[in-house]
Amino acid sequence: MEGSKGVVLLNCFVSPFGNRVRIALTKKGVEHEVTSENMVNKSALLLASNPVHAKVPVLLVAGKPVCESLVILEFIDEAFATSGEQLLPADAYARAQARFWAAYVDAKVPACAGKIWLSPAVAPAVEEGKKEMVDVFKTLEAELGEKAYFAGESLGFADVALVTFAPWFLTYERLAGFSIAEECPVLTAWAARCAKENECVSKSLPDPEAVFQFVGGMRKHFGLE
Amino acid sequence: MEGSKGVVLLNCFVSPFGNRVRIALTKKGVEHEVTSENMVNKSALLLASNPVHAKVPVLLVAGKPVCESLVILEFIDEAFATSGEQLLPADAYARAQARFWAAYVDAKVPACAGKIWLSPAVAPAVEEGKKEMVDVFKTLEAELGEKAYFAGESLGFADVALVTFAPWFLTYERLAGFSIAEECPVLTAWAARCAKENECVSKSLPDPEAVFQFVGGMRKHFGLE
Repeated sequence: MEGSKGVVLLNCFVSPFGNRVRIALTKKGVEHEVTSENMVNKSALLLASNPVHAKVPVLLVAGKPVCESLVILEFIDEAFATSGEQLLPADAYARAQARFWAAYVDAKVPACAGKIWLSPAVAPAVEEGKKEMVDVFKTLEAELGEKAYFAGESLGFADVALVTFAPWFLTYERLAGFSIAEECPVLTAWAARCAKENECVSKSLPDPEAVFQFVGGMRKHFGLE
Repeated sequence: MEGSKGVVLLNCFVSPFGNRVRIALTKKGVEHEVTSENMVNKSALLLASNPVHAKVPVLLVAGKPVCESLVILEFIDEAFATSGEQLLPADAYARAQARFWAAYVDAKVPACAGKIWLSPAVAPAVEEGKKEMVDVFKTLEAELGEKAYFAGESLGFADVALVTFAPWFLTYERLAGFSIAEECPVLTAWAARCAKENECVSKSLPDPEAVFQFVGGMRKHFGLE
């Protein structure tokens, strides 16, 4: 395998999970290749590297796979500890807070987002997903408060976990008929700040219109529209 | 608060999540108090300490709360790094593997277990939960293979994440009509080994009959039997 001596990320360009890893690798200056996976026709390498979940992202390091995006972020912090700034703070209690909020994102955001983009247009689930999403985002706004980032002054673990959903906001808004900027101005400003102040974020995230087009294709594939 | 200067665990004695924390604190020799929570009438302290999820376990350290069981295990490893053996290995790749399997347990076991114990006795969900549980346990058996523990020779992070479900096996078996020992002998032997070789496990887990009684009470409370 060509990349067996280096760092290779198996990703799909819209994946909020895979794009976390792109941000982390870029932030830490870890040289890597990105291989695009077709999610309706997964590669033999993806299936062999993540037999349990058969999902992106997978990070291959010297051919050895690491799976699950938050696990990969921790791995990057530990395996490339000398490269650039750490994602997790040094203090044990602050680390626990960052992990708590990243786990909150994983427990809540994909579920309500899925109700919006994986339901037929007129399904009651869409309205339900929208309400849940606003609740979840308001909880995150309350935690953010006056801070620039979740852990304070710079982009960290919880920010990276959440910001990769921002390119999907336009899709959620169009499918569920609401405005995240109006409902959640603090979170919207935070997402803009993440991209504006961090090249690792702006360079790693897809264009929201491209996400919308991609999701439209997936919805047709699943017979949802 | 009496325990504000020490380490206090808010727990419910049957909780697989809370009991992970008991094992970790005991294994590392961290002095602590355990406060029993009534899950149908939660204390003001629990609600104030974990406003986001309102769930056990919560670990209070000098009055500051840490929530989410796997986050707490990482916190214990980091905050009490000098006390006893670490739960996570030293090597970054091995740490990622341990975290992957603990995340797998959290993603899979509570969901299929819930189908068994939170469904009416004759619901199709019970049969579904049983089949999924056997699949999940067989995946875990394949990972375990010939090893004594998930990370090798001693009790570690993934073992602690999973072993706290073992006292519930009797309840799953009785409610869904199957034998975990027959279906999954490798996992059954591993669970017995965890308890036999580690006092921190045997001292932290409830009696399976007590779990069954407790679950029976919960099922009556929820109108399931």
